[in-house]
Parts: sequence; structure tokens; C-alpha cells
Amino acid sequence: MDHLHQTFSVRFTYSVYFTEQLFDSTNSLLADFFSQQATAETRKKLLVVIDSGVVSTHPNLPATITSYFSQHADSVELVTDFLILPGGEIAKNDPDSVEKIVDAVDRHGIDRHSYVAAIGGGSVLDLVGYAAAISHRGIRHIRIPTTVLSQNDSGVGVKNGVNYKGKKNFLGTFVPPVAVFNDSQFLTTLDERDWRAGVSEAVKVALIKDKAFFEWIEQNAEALAARDMTAMQYLVHRCADMHLQHIAGGDPFEMGSSRPLDFGHWSAHKLEQLTNFEIRHGEAVAIGIAMDSLYSQQLGWLSETDTNRILTTLRTLGFVLYQPMLDADNSAGVLKGLSEFREHLGGQLTIMLLKDLGRGVEVHEMDADRIRQAIATLREQESLTLQPALSGQ
Amino acid sequence: MDHLHQTFSVRFTYSVYFTEQLFDSTNSLLADFFSQQATAETRKKLLVVIDSGVVSTHPNLPATITSYFSQHADSVELVTDFLILPGGEIAKNDPDSVEKIVDAVDRHGIDRHSYVAAIGGGSVLDLVGYAAAISHRGIRHIRIPTTVLSQNDSGVGVKNGVNYKGKKNFLGTFVPPVAVFNDSQFLTTLDERDWRAGVSEAVKVALIKDKAFFEWIEQNAEALAARDMTAMQYLVHRCADMHLQHIAGGDPFEMGSSRPLDFGHWSAHKLEQLTNFEIRHGEAVAIGIAMDSLYSQQLGWLSETDTNRILTTLRTLGFVLYQPMLDADNSAGVLKGLSEFREHLGGQLTIMLLKDLGRGVEVHEMDADRIRQAIATLREQESLTLQPALSGQ
Ligand SMILES: NC(=O)c1ccc[n+]([C@@H]2O[C@H](COP(=O)([O-])OP(=O)(O)OC[C@H]3O[C@@H](n4cnc5c(N)ncnc54)[C@H](O)[C@@H]3O)[C@@H](O)[C@H]2O)c1
Ligand SMILES: NC(=O)c1ccc[n+]([C@@H]2O[C@H](COP(=O)([O-])OP(=O)(O)OC[C@H]3O[C@@H](n4cnc5c(N)ncnc54)[C@H](O)[C@@H]3O)[C@@H](O)[C@H]2O)c1
Ligand SMILES: [Zn+2]
Ligand SMILES: [Zn+2]
Repeated sequence: MDHLHQTFSVRFTYSVYFTEQLFDSTNSLLADFFSQQATAETRKKLLVVIDSGVVSTHPNLPATITSYFSQHADSVELVTDFLILPGGEIAKNDPDSVEKIVDAVDRHGIDRHSYVAAIGGGSVLDLVGYAAAISHRGIRHIRIPTTVLSQNDSGVGVKNGVNYKGKKNFLGTFVPPVAVFNDSQFLTTLDERDWRAGVSEAVKVALIKDKAFFEWIEQNAEALAARDMTAMQYLVHRCADMHLQHIAGGDPFEMGSSRPLDFGHWSAHKLEQLTNFEIRHGEAVAIGIAMDSLYSQQLGWLSETDTNRILTTLRTLGFVLYQPMLDADNSAGVLKGLSEFREHLGGQLTIMLLKDLGRGVEVHEMDADRIRQAIATLREQESLTLQPALSGQ
Repeated sequence: MDHLHQTFSVRFTYSVYFTEQLFDSTNSLLADFFSQQATAETRKKLLVVIDSGVVSTHPNLPATITSYFSQHADSVELVTDFLILPGGEIAKNDPDSVEKIVDAVDRHGIDRHSYVAAIGGGSVLDLVGYAAAISHRGIRHIRIPTTVLSQNDSGVGVKNGVNYKGKKNFLGTFVPPVAVFNDSQFLTTLDERDWRAGVSEAVKVALIKDKAFFEWIEQNAEALAARDMTAMQYLVHRCADMHLQHIAGGDPFEMGSSRPLDFGHWSAHKLEQLTNFEIRHGEAVAIGIAMDSLYSQQLGWLSETDTNRILTTLRTLGFVLYQPMLDADNSAGVLKGLSEFREHLGGQLTIMLLKDLGRGVEVHEMDADRIRQAIATLREQESLTLQPALSGQ
């Protein structure tokens, strides 16, 4: 049979920097990054897209950025016409958002060697990363994550995406950023829920890969709940590191069916949708972790003690581990999340469960009755804690 | 400075198959491909998008495909609801086209391990490749190119794209297909212009890389113009091979500024737009090759004899090497193509010229007067050939 065979590899490389006050004029980290990338021949431009939730809590940010780049004018040519887009899941739900960014790329003549930076939570980062990835077949993208979740998880990875007709991440690509700048100062203005939400991704990665890290979280859960910044900085750093290692060590563009980092996520994605995105991604993940831990216990894989350690840690962090929509047990309920999860990932259903603290193991089927039982346990425990199961939690 | 560094490589691999009568029930090539990829756990689906120009010249094609997969039912599950989209540049200009494909992906539950195949010319392939690349962060994409240009060039490469507000390929990605099936039977129904148009890409790659191949084209120009299928099969195969080698040997995702395969293209892209896409991409490339060869001659790089050999070969193939829009010499004219080309590629302006037949050399500036002189030469020569410079040619 007559054929030609093609094989090649593409190498991707980027750094995740940890800093404070990224745009303080005395902090040269960002300017140095651009200067190192500069070439003699052409001057590169920088288009900045900012999350409205960041601007409202940091009203001076646009002026500070303008001033930073006027003092570091050699490094890159800032487009001072900032694009400010509504933060939160709406960024990914509104079909006009992508067009707004693409139009700005066109209007300001941002080419493939110029930069589009996004400052914001995971939602705005996912949106801007997607728009940058498809414009001119990919413009250099810089992420400046401003939430716990985006600093320790989504912002350091290789995925972007937007929702399409309510379907989570239906459109997206795998494209690494050229750099990530984690500025912990941004975290100080997060509201309680967003501060907490991102911690569940750290619990997740610890549970499937690193018992010692889980035990650190367990011991520091109260400090984290009390917004101890030193503890949070350690958590973000360790979690980001584990994510990077996982991506590099495995299947970065997820061509297979395995998705270890999606532990607790099959139900989380569905729960987000069922609550009309009133629940935060990280809050839904906390519930998903609790459910799949209880499921692992039912299989005899996890001891009762260890299961309780997980649930207690999540509650100490402030998570509420039950949501009424878990019991919307009809064809559109949380169980439907299993088949949607399989469809989104493609291929065989592959779900991560726990064989031990720090040790995830994949299965290819889940039993509906066991899932219902895990939900029932969470419902009962929640009613006992006397904590009201607030809608939207 | 506190930072984490990330590096990984992603390996891409695919084959380009050459066959005839791909969907003949006795031709197991395609069925074998799917069978080899099949896994025990899940049944994969195949969504097929077809160019309307192919369907109108091969009206039995949908029925033939359905029959093929009913006879090879084990290999893959065909979605018999074919999506037929208008062929030609309109496919890439109409913003609804992408949505139609994405909706079909959703409606038919095509997951990341299932397939979207495109049967058609370079335009439909670029469109479907793009829609497949962004759906679920990338569905496996199969290309079945049906024009000379798509079989020898666009269909075997790694790029896809659509136009945005008239801007050529403004949206797109770099994503290799999982397989390409070149069926030469499709070429028999091409009209004169489309048969010819793709040959200019072979002239292009020969001129920058392989004098012997150029001389083969020179010697076979009449046979090619007379639609000799054996000659065309050789040309397509050799040109596809050179493209694959170029991609694997260089910078597959074009992260640098160099784009050797865009010889003759800076003006071609602009000319396509100036003629409102009445001129074919390959026709515009033939003119672009002629212009940049004359320019190379003016620099003293190419001898008059060699320059004439190039022009004569293109004319023997049937190309008209002048188009009135070349003289629309205002700010929106063809010269503007230079800056737009730079902007699309990013970084420094990088243009391929010829130092010899088979040897391209890059420059970083072009002189407007020399370009005008090259155009003037083409205008004069064309008026001498007595061949009317038809509009749309
Ligand atoms: N790409 C990936 O790999 C990946 C991984 C995990 C999650 N995600 C996605 O990330 C999204 C969730 O991101 P998130 O948890 O960061 O929430 P978010 O981006 O939705 O932001 C939540 C809220 O916080 C506000 N905000 C952001 N930064 C702030 C700051 N410094 N101070 C005050 N308010 C601020 C926003 O405006 C918004 O209202 C989801 O869409 C999820 O699917 C993506
Ligand atoms: N992705 C890349 O790397 C790349 C490279 C070069 C060109 N391109 C793009 O490819 C496009 C041009 O592709 P093209 O030259 O194949 O033309 P085309 O796809 O525009 O098709 C031209 C016409 O031929 C018809 N047609 C297709 N197959 C036929 C067949 N077998 N019989 C009869 N009619 C048929 C189509 O319906 C259309 O009307 C341009 O948009 C160009 O930018 C892309
Ligand atoms: Zn998550
Ligand atoms: Zn071309």
C-alpha cells in the first residue's frame, strides 16, 4: 500500500513565576521577561485583558500597569486600551466574549510574536487563552492568575476553553502559555468562597498522588480557612508544581482516555451545570471528592478512618459537602454526568478512585446504587452538622 | 527569583495514503485504518462532512459511502446523516459554517476518540479541520482531499483555518490530521482551473528546494496541462512528500518567523482578497512566483534564462501571469500585502526569494519600486502573448 509516513515532535517550554506586586515599578520580573524575548528587528506588542472582578477590587490596576510599562518602555509596547471583561463563568458562557478579544487582536495589530496577557480568575483565563489560541493560529499567551484555583491549577496547565450552549468547555484547545505569573497579592481580595474553592484542587491532587501533601493540608486546614497567607503560598506552590509534573510526565494533550487530575470531577462538572453555575467549580469539586471517597470506601478500598479524614479536612476548610441538586435523581441528574464525562473525554469511561490516601486507581464503570448511597451519606451528615445547606453553596 | 520550569514534547504521527476509488467496497484501505485503531471497549463514530462541489460531480458519493461502511461495519460506526457544505472559499468566509459542524458534533455525540472526516477541496478541509480542532479540545480529524492543491499541499500539512471579516485564515490552529487519504479519481472531475491551480504549489516547492523536480515539471508541463493522470499522480506524490519532509524537518507549528513554503505567497494572499476571491489560491500563487522570480532576477540572483524558464513553465501549464488588480497601486493595493503578510506571520518580515532554481534564500525587506517593475514586466509580457487577461483568471 502506497503511503508516506509523518512523525515529528513539538517542544513546549514555559515558566511559572511566583512573586508579589507584579506591577510595582521596582519589580522587574515581568519587564525582564519581555526584554529577554525581545529581538532587534521588531517591537512586540502586549494586549491586556482583565477580569472585571479584579478591576473592581483593584481599581488602580489599569493605571498601575500603564505606569509600569512607561517605566519599562523598552521591554514591550503596551496597548493601553485595556479590554475589561466580566469575570466568572459568564466569561465562558457569553459567545460574544471570544469575538471581543479577536476584534481587539485585529484592531491593535497583535501578531503571532506579540502577546495577549490575561489577568483574572480561571474563567477569564480559559476564555482569553482560547481566543489567543485561535487568533492567527496562536498568539503568545501570558497568564496572570488572580484566584487560588487559577494559580494552583488551571492557570499553570495547557488547556483553555469556553462553554457552548451551556456545555462546559465544549470549545477549546490544548496550548501552553509562554509564561505564568502568580502574584499572591491578588488573593487578598478574593471573597471567602473563591479563596476556599481553589483549595479543593490541591486536596484532589494530594489525594491521588501525595499522602504527605494531604497530611500537610489536613494539619493546615484551619490556618487556610483563616486566610493564612503563608500557608496559602505554600499550598499554591506545591499544587502548581504537582500539576506541572503531572502534565510533563504523562499525556500533556490528553490523547488517551486517562485523566487522573479529573478525580472528583465527573459529578462536579454536572453539579455546576445543574445549579446553573451558582456553585463554584472548586466547591463542586469538594463535593465530588467527598462522593468518590465514600464510593471508594464502599468498595473496601479506603478505610473508614481515612475517608473521615478526607471529609473532615474538607469541612474544616469550610466546604459544605452536600447540595440539594445531588438528589435531582432523574435522567438529567448528576448520574448523567458520568456519560457526559465519558463523552467529553472520549473513548472508554475512566474514573479515578482512591485505594489509599495519596494513591489514585482508575476504574471503568461506576455503580448507580453506590453513587446514590454516597450521596445519601453526605445528605445525612450535612443535616447533622447543623450547618444550613445554603443554596448556591 | 522563585519559579518552576516546564518542558515537554508532544509527538504527532500520521500517514498519507495514495489510492484510487477509496470507497469501492473492495478497497479495504479505509476500513483497515479504522479497524487498526479500534479498541475493545468503545465503538467509535465517524461524522463525514462533504464539499458540495464534490457531491455535485459525484452524486452517488453519499450512497457509496453508506454502502461501504455497511459492508465494513466492524471498523467504525458511520453517522449516515452527512453534512454537505458549500465548497470553495465561501466555506471559509461564512461564519455559520463552523457552527454547523460543531452542532453536528454535539448532536451526534462525536467524542475526542471518534472521527470527523472531510471530503473536499482545501477550503472545506481548512474549515472542517478547524471545527474539529476546537470541538472538545480536538476531535480526531481525517482528510480526504479532492483537489490537486489539497492533495499535494494543504491537505497533507498541519494547518487549518477560516477567514474572519474577510481576513484570510485569521482564525485557525496547528493540528495534524490522524490520516490523509489521497484518491486520484477525485481529480478527474475538477474543472480546468482547479486542476491547474494546485500545480503552482508544486512549482513553488520545487523552486525553493529541488531543481530536479522543477526540471521534471518543466518537461511535463504540457502533459500536465493536457490532464495526463500519470504525470499528475507523480507530481502530487512528490510534492506531498516534500511538504511532509519540510514540516518534520523544521518548525512544524511555525513558532519562528521563517516560512519557506510561503514563497510567492505574500502577494498571492492579497491578490485573492483584492479580486474578492475570484482568482483561485493556486492561480494567485503562480503570479506571486512569477513576481518574486523577476524580483530575484533584478537583484542579480537569478539569471535571465532561469527566470524565463520559470515563467515559460507556468505559462505552459496554462497560468495567466498578470491580473489587473496588481496595478491597483494605492494604499489598499498588492503592496499592502507585504505588511499584512508580516503581521499574519508575526515578528520580522521574512520573504523567500530565489538564488538559483531549487535554492530559496530569505530576505527581510523588499523594495516597492522593484516590485512595481516586476509587475510592469508581467503586464507587458501578458499583452504580448495575445492571451486576453480575463478577469477572474
Ligand atoms: N483550563 C483548565 O485546565 C481548568 C482547570 C480547572 C478549572 N478551570 C476553570 O476555571 C474556572 C473557575 O475559575 P476560578 O475558580 O478562578 O473562578 P472564576 O474565574 O470564575 O472567578 C470567580 C470570581 O472571582 C472574581 N475574581 C477573580 N480574581 C479576583 C481577585 N483577585 N479578587 C477578587 N475577585 C476576583 C471573578 O471576577 C469572579 O467573579 C471554571 O470555568 C473552570 O472550569 C479550568
Ligand atoms: N491549510 C493549509 O496549509 C493550506 C495551504 C494552501 C492552501 N490552503 C487553502 O486551500 C484553499 C484552496 O483550496 P483548493 O485549491 O483545493 O480549492 P477549493 O477548496 O476552494 O475548491 C475549489 C472548487 O473545487 C470544487 N471541488 C473540490 N473538489 C472537487 C472535485 N473533485 N471535482 C470537482 N469539483 C471539486 C469545490 O467545490 C470548489 O468549488 C484556500 O482557502 C487556501 O487558502 C490551505
Ligand atoms: Zn478542576
Ligand atoms: Zn499556498
